[in-house]
Amino acid sequence: MGAAGEEMYRFIERAYPICRSITGDGVRQTLALIRERIPLEISEVPSGTPVFDWTVPKEWNIRGAWIKDPSGHKVVDFQDCNLHVLSYSVPVHERLPLAELREHLFTLPDKPDLIPYRTSYYREAWGFCLPHRTLECLPEGEYEILIDSTLADGSLTYGECLLPGDSEREVLLSTHVCHPSLCNDNLSGIAVMTELARELQSRPRRRYSYRFLFIPGTIGSITWLARNEVRIDHGLVAANLGDPGTFHYKKSRRSSFGIKPAEIDRAVLSVLKASGEPFGADEFVPFGYDERQYCSPGFNLAVGSLTRTPYGRYPEYHTSADDLDFISSEALEGSLRTYLAVMDVLEGNRRYLNLNPQCEPQLGRRGLYRAIGGDEAGRARELALLWVLNLSDGEHDLLEIAERSGMSFAAIREAADALLAVSLLEETS
Amino acid sequence: MGAAGEEMYRFIERAYPICRSITGDGVRQTLALIRERIPLEISEVPSGTPVFDWTVPKEWNIRGAWIKDPSGHKVVDFQDCNLHVLSYSVPVHERLPLAELREHLFTLPDKPDLIPYRTSYYREAWGFCLPHRTLECLPEGEYEILIDSTLADGSLTYGECLLPGDSEREVLLSTHVCHPSLCNDNLSGIAVMTELARELQSRPRRRYSYRFLFIPGTIGSITWLARNEVRIDHGLVAANLGDPGTFHYKKSRRSSFGIKPAEIDRAVLSVLKASGEPFGADEFVPFGYDERQYCSPGFNLAVGSLTRTPYGRYPEYHTSADDLDFISSEALEGSLRTYLAVMDVLEGNRRYLNLNPQCEPQLGRRGLYRAIGGDEAGRARELALLWVLNLSDGEHDLLEIAERSGMSFAAIREAADALLAVSLLEETS
Amino acid sequence: MGAAGEEMYRFIERAYPICRSITGDGVRQTLALIRERIPLEISEVPSGTPVFDWTVPKEWNIRGAWIKDPSGHKVVDFQDCNLHVLSYSVPVHERLPLAELREHLFTLPDKPDLIPYRTSYYREAWGFCLPHRTLECLPEGEYEILIDSTLADGSLTYGECLLPGDSEREVLLSTHVCHPSLCNDNLSGIAVMTELARELQSRPRRRYSYRFLFIPGTIGSITWLARNEVRIDHGLVAANLGDPGTFHYKKSRRSSFGIKPAEIDRAVLSVLKASGEPFGADEFVPFGYDERQYCSPGFNLAVGSLTRTPYGRYPEYHTSADDLDFISSEALEGSLRTYLAVMDVLEGNRRYLNLNPQCEPQLGRRGLYRAIGGDEAGRARELALLWVLNLSDGEHDLLEIAERSGMSFAAIREAADALLAVSLLEETS
Repeated sequence: MGAAGEEMYRFIERAYPICRSITGDGVRQTLALIRERIPLEISEVPSGTPVFDWTVPKEWNIRGAWIKDPSGHKVVDFQDCNLHVLSYSVPVHERLPLAELREHLFTLPDKPDLIPYRTSYYREAWGFCLPHRTLECLPEGEYEILIDSTLADGSLTYGECLLPGDSEREVLLSTHVCHPSLCNDNLSGIAVMTELARELQSRPRRRYSYRFLFIPGTIGSITWLARNEVRIDHGLVAANLGDPGTFHYKKSRRSSFGIKPAEIDRAVLSVLKASGEPFGADEFVPFGYDERQYCSPGFNLAVGSLTRTPYGRYPEYHTSADDLDFISSEALEGSLRTYLAVMDVLEGNRRYLNLNPQCEPQLGRRGLYRAIGGDEAGRARELALLWVLNLSDGEHDLLEIAERSGMSFAAIREAADALLAVSLLEETS
Repeated sequence: MGAAGEEMYRFIERAYPICRSITGDGVRQTLALIRERIPLEISEVPSGTPVFDWTVPKEWNIRGAWIKDPSGHKVVDFQDCNLHVLSYSVPVHERLPLAELREHLFTLPDKPDLIPYRTSYYREAWGFCLPHRTLECLPEGEYEILIDSTLADGSLTYGECLLPGDSEREVLLSTHVCHPSLCNDNLSGIAVMTELARELQSRPRRRYSYRFLFIPGTIGSITWLARNEVRIDHGLVAANLGDPGTFHYKKSRRSSFGIKPAEIDRAVLSVLKASGEPFGADEFVPFGYDERQYCSPGFNLAVGSLTRTPYGRYPEYHTSADDLDFISSEALEGSLRTYLAVMDVLEGNRRYLNLNPQCEPQLGRRGLYRAIGGDEAGRARELALLWVLNLSDGEHDLLEIAERSGMSFAAIREAADALLAVSLLEETS
Repeated sequence: MGAAGEEMYRFIERAYPICRSITGDGVRQTLALIRERIPLEISEVPSGTPVFDWTVPKEWNIRGAWIKDPSGHKVVDFQDCNLHVLSYSVPVHERLPLAELREHLFTLPDKPDLIPYRTSYYREAWGFCLPHRTLECLPEGEYEILIDSTLADGSLTYGECLLPGDSEREVLLSTHVCHPSLCNDNLSGIAVMTELARELQSRPRRRYSYRFLFIPGTIGSITWLARNEVRIDHGLVAANLGDPGTFHYKKSRRSSFGIKPAEIDRAVLSVLKASGEPFGADEFVPFGYDERQYCSPGFNLAVGSLTRTPYGRYPEYHTSADDLDFISSEALEGSLRTYLAVMDVLEGNRRYLNLNPQCEPQLGRRGLYRAIGGDEAGRARELALLWVLNLSDGEHDLLEIAERSGMSFAAIREAADALLAVSLLEETS
């Protein structure tokens, strides 16, 4: 797996130039790249399809766009950077004075060298995004502008990868594919989820089925939820996984507002704690990525969101500075390993009964206890055995035993395996 | 309402000279002043009436009192300050040497310029209160003393103002009227409750009925509880509302020792938090003002106490320094506004069902969502909408949504109104 | 009781030279010393008896042991200190070169002047423990060694003292008697438990029955649990009670991992808080002393462990430095008083109903209220009365009232007695 980070970075380099939006050929091209690495079922949902309170929008495609100044010089060109066009801009070709044009120009005055990323999906509009410095240099006069786009009936496209397991109950891994040339948000999420699917696919056996969704934000998850039977036991929304920041976990609505914490939240937090690295944890809020939909009260799924720096909290967010330099193969690799560790907890978490519950069993005669001396590692293994024995009363799963003992889930799982091998434990439900 | 603070201060100026106690004409004169501003039903309960474990005491009245020194000079005179007489002093007129007199004199050695406030309601006694400096200057010799009081069968007097609402369930607002010339404790409470009743009376509609009690401390609330059917859903005991200190809230017994917090406690704390000002919050203790009786285990009403500086925690407490200079119209005004904000929460707190619970509804097509840009206030309004939609699952009332979101109750109530207007919510119980 | 500390110290001086182990005459001699002070039933359980997953081991006894260096000089001698022999060493008498001998020698390189304490109960072995400095001075050559021990069928010995009370429900006090010449661990526990039994025995009446167990660690508690019907409501494991450290309490498994805290844990923590001294409190972990067995999931008894410095956390632990200088009569006395205070809470904790639950009763006419003035102590007594009255609703026991009020259990118990005397309370269950 050492090379996985490099692999993911190269994938992002290839996908970076593509102009994605919530519909259109950019999404199709991106899904084609993913399909080179994992099996992917592509769905096309026609414009106009009702999905809960929403309607699948028209499909948007774009070939080019520019602004020519009064002297005919192209001062803004879609060819240079696809962020230059307000996403979902209707086609337009006209001449107009600077004052009128200005109402369609978006800049970031406090980050004057960067191009912002802006959209107008559900209100027909057109516009350009550009560095504030460029705006300030524009001379008065008449400008010619062109947006060579189409907004017409077509379809919304998304990709799905289902890895069947021993159970039909599913782990959902959802990531958005609707952003144009932005690396951390969200080519990083796409790349890490693709590689995670590869890793899980390579396993001989899976306890759960795993469903990966590569979907446009908001309308994509709404469309998927409207068209499918939901069998999700645990889920994560993936994004912002390539930046240099520490991990942040946003808990599911169930944990934040329900009676008891969801297993997915306990699993992620256990992995982050065991890493020894600093990390952040936030309560659920009803805004962010597609966890908004999965955690709407009519579904209330156990879905959290595991990212590095959360959206909106890094200065490069939604600007042209979220580029190939902002992310690294090391960060991507670390993100993949963390997601894998979480999946290992979900796969391995069980509830057992101690079959010798009255007093401790004699571990020594079963070869599970050190002799007179003993190293630190041996002592830690013994403590893990004692924790599993003491708390395997049907009330505590291994994850809770890890939490209570302060030991890693892996150490507790290993102890349970050793005890199973000598018939001191039995699985319970 | 800007002038309410001045109005309350003027009321206190008029009521300040009156010598109040737990019975007697001072209480009647004070209730007459209140009745100038709000409708008030006056009750007279005869001495000797049994009220639970207690008996309504004899009525006490006083016309004058003094101490003359050996040279016949009046060194202490009730005319100067009614705190000079131990409240409920039996009548006495005699000559006695200083040594004997001293046993009836009360001073504050560590605040030598102030007159203390002392009472002896349930044990017949007489006494004078005076500055310690005065005591120290008294020459040896024979003194003449007079207390021209009466302690005889009569009645206990209290006032009640009931503002009927859509429901017969009541909000109780209770304040004590038994203290003589002390401004913060408790002419401030009397003044703010009087003005609060005026404000609520002026409203075209009230969800709850509001019952204001102007009663002598302890025996007054015991008497009221013994004589009335209790229909109280929420209640507050008001006192110490004119001093310059920050607000303090003492929770109801239900919140401190029960399973879940009472709505009145959540409402007050929500208002205090939203104020942005520092404030104090204490758990229930079975001593203080009349919340002791309302929260006795046989009633266990949801009654807390909202004050500025709590009793006993300011040096002027129960001394002649609790005078007209210690309180201000600004503090009174702020207290009134805070009580009104709490009543607004009680009036507005409801539980709703999101009628579009599967995924978010499309707010944009209902005119509830900003276009491309948008100001901070618009963003906050949107977040409030999302919070209300996400948590309106029948488990959370608006107050809890305010608590969870960190937004003010007013902002959440406004969002609920906007969603009700487009039929996205329905009230539930 | 002032002389109890001295008494306990003298007991330890007599017991210190005895070579104890989990079986053998050293245990019998120690139990004989205890029996001089309290009634003690001695049990002998034959080697080979199955006890749950374990088997009672062979009995071990030792008469002497030494190492002679190549010049015939005794460099290590059991007569000097019984820690010199690995406990449960099989008999051996042979000549061998230093290199081979070294594999049977145990030292503490980081505490080079101290002899470590080591055992090998369940794996047949022999060995010597000695200061690291001695080891470093041993010349090359052939050594003669002797361990004059026997390991043969016999029995496991333990002592039991049952003090019957009004109820057959028991308080368990368990302490281990298997350590050789180590004072804090655990002659201090043995001495304090012996004295505690004497104190409780001297009482005319006991609410609970008290069972004191003087047992070898692990195998002793397993043997007792296997052979007896368990009627234990509350329990403590006693050890490390003579060192100069502060008290530490390890909670029972019920408190740490169950729904609500066990009364024994609340009792101990209440006493430690009321002491005003610093103390430590730890959650249950499934290792330590015999609470491991009492709190195994098949029993899950309400048994915690109250010690001074916990095992392993002082440098003298399990070394020859845990000697008569390390402990003091003052520390032993303080430990005894603390255990007695805990027993007083268990004896006195009850649940009452306030028979005058509507409003406060009038305490004044029952002589329970101060007149006009009043001292601090009188005020505290009144507050205790109000706390007991307010919380005696059948939901709170006196211990919880002490916790909620921040007052000592003794003060709350005294208030309850005063209220019982005037028929304001009634016991409930």
